[in-house]
Amino acid sequence: MSLVVVGSFGLDTVETPFGRREEVLGGSAIYFSLASSLFTQVKLAGNVGQDFPESAWTALKQRGADLSGIQVFKDQPTFRWSGRYQGDMNEAETLKTELNVLAEPPTVPDDYRGADFVFLANMGPDTQLEMLQQLDGGMVYADTMNLWIDIQRDNLIRLLQKLDGLVLNDSEARQLTGESNLIKAGDALLRMGPGVVIVKKGEHGAFLFERGFHFALPAYPTTKVTDPTGAGDSFAGGFLGALAETGNSTPDNLRRAMAYGTVAASLTVEQFSTAGLEGATRADLDHRYQQLRDFVRFEA
Amino acid sequence: MSLVVVGSFGLDTVETPFGRREEVLGGSAIYFSLASSLFTQVKLAGNVGQDFPESAWTALKQRGADLSGIQVFKDQPTFRWSGRYQGDMNEAETLKTELNVLAEPPTVPDDYRGADFVFLANMGPDTQLEMLQQLDGGMVYADTMNLWIDIQRDNLIRLLQKLDGLVLNDSEARQLTGESNLIKAGDALLRMGPGVVIVKKGEHGAFLFERGFHFALPAYPTTKVTDPTGAGDSFAGGFLGALAETGNSTPDNLRRAMAYGTVAASLTVEQFSTAGLEGATRADLDHRYQQLRDFVRFEA
Repeated sequence: MSLVVVGSFGLDTVETPFGRREEVLGGSAIYFSLASSLFTQVKLAGNVGQDFPESAWTALKQRGADLSGIQVFKDQPTFRWSGRYQGDMNEAETLKTELNVLAEPPTVPDDYRGADFVFLANMGPDTQLEMLQQLDGGMVYADTMNLWIDIQRDNLIRLLQKLDGLVLNDSEARQLTGESNLIKAGDALLRMGPGVVIVKKGEHGAFLFERGFHFALPAYPTTKVTDPTGAGDSFAGGFLGALAETGNSTPDNLRRAMAYGTVAASLTVEQFSTAGLEGATRADLDHRYQQLRDFVRFEA
Repeated sequence: MSLVVVGSFGLDTVETPFGRREEVLGGSAIYFSLASSLFTQVKLAGNVGQDFPESAWTALKQRGADLSGIQVFKDQPTFRWSGRYQGDMNEAETLKTELNVLAEPPTVPDDYRGADFVFLANMGPDTQLEMLQQLDGGMVYADTMNLWIDIQRDNLIRLLQKLDGLVLNDSEARQLTGESNLIKAGDALLRMGPGVVIVKKGEHGAFLFERGFHFALPAYPTTKVTDPTGAGDSFAGGFLGALAETGNSTPDNLRRAMAYGTVAASLTVEQFSTAGLEGATRADLDHRYQQLRDFVRFEA
């Protein structure tokens, strides 16, 4: 089934206890696309500058992605982010953000309209609402972040009422609902609109909430966390890729999608930037999927 | 099968965002016993003062516990702890500790020797080593804490070599091994001696490590966390109670025991002090066990 992602493509400078990388591939939509393209055809939309490297598209082209929604701006450079991870690496400290081409909202090609699945990666809720109008499509999932909860809360609340699914991290879930208990926060988010809420907890895994159905999964037990950047978007890409592959959202398929999201994220964190996902095959994902299944298998 | 616990019985003064309780029942061994006595006969050993309330034993007597290893000291008051939980309540801030009767090591009755299962609750590793000699019994599990990792590291390392199982929390696992990655920390702890290592992660659940077998379980999804005191000891009590009930430690039984530990902890955190476990029946545990199983059930 068709899957559209709208979001950022960028150049990141990242420092972790394991090293530093300058101007490497980044942005929410690149991680999402590299993960979801292992499951289904992905249609990308977003803005880049002329300084965005052509090599960024190699793996995506090989996986059949549709790049017709990528707009190359001549007068503006690509989005840039630089950040640092320390200690347990659970949270990035942002050192610098240069929006550049992201100052303009993306334009979505007409033939992206009516897609079966849509992911609105982290952008201002005002832009996400505008994208919704341009896309007019099937099951829509979105991500958000603490900044928008602070400065665009009203738009975010309006967006939530139109979403089929929300993907956010635990601190954002707490911030948005005012509930410190994550189970209560998940239920509160369901009451705000989306039929499915996924709360990502980094190394502690993720919860999925649907009315009358809750599901918990730990993170894939990797012993190598090199760079957590993009883990959440890789999770969303694996999740929606797996959903789009089967085309329906039964509890069993939601569980399966959660597991694929989890293993996609594990590939990302093991290497800097997008190297983990670029080098991965579907067989790699399936292998880790089975390992994760064994890790949580609960007979009795 | 027989199960012995040696540990502390105390009077706690606790403050959480949900209220304050003074001189309520506490101590590692009381939580452990109240949980494990729902599965099997438990034999208790530890020191109390004459000020320890007789009513503390009511539920345990009803559940057939053997109290012959409880020593009542005439010249010393009961152990007292006071602490406070704030914010996400994941960690207690200790305000005061009065060891009192705990200055003396417990004495274990002769007929406790050779028990099938033993739990050495959190005490100095020197005392735990001495208890091991007095007990000379079957499968021995122990808990520890950051203080002993700091000031009795050598004794703790010696103890680990004699243990069948170690139960500790995530920050202790990191501190003891120097590994920030919990999977690596678990494997490192296995190399230090115990055949089974359980890493408790509070609201994020628990990991079990055995050579060649890893298992992860989230916390029971309670929406009511009133007082986390004793959650870890309740977990250990549910875990070892369930193991002692079946008498063997196959992977399936270890998974089952992890789940019972998890639900026992959930009953504890929902009320102050030991109220949750005192009011619980085996049917309550079984009901939550099934709910937890549904929460993590992963078909595909």
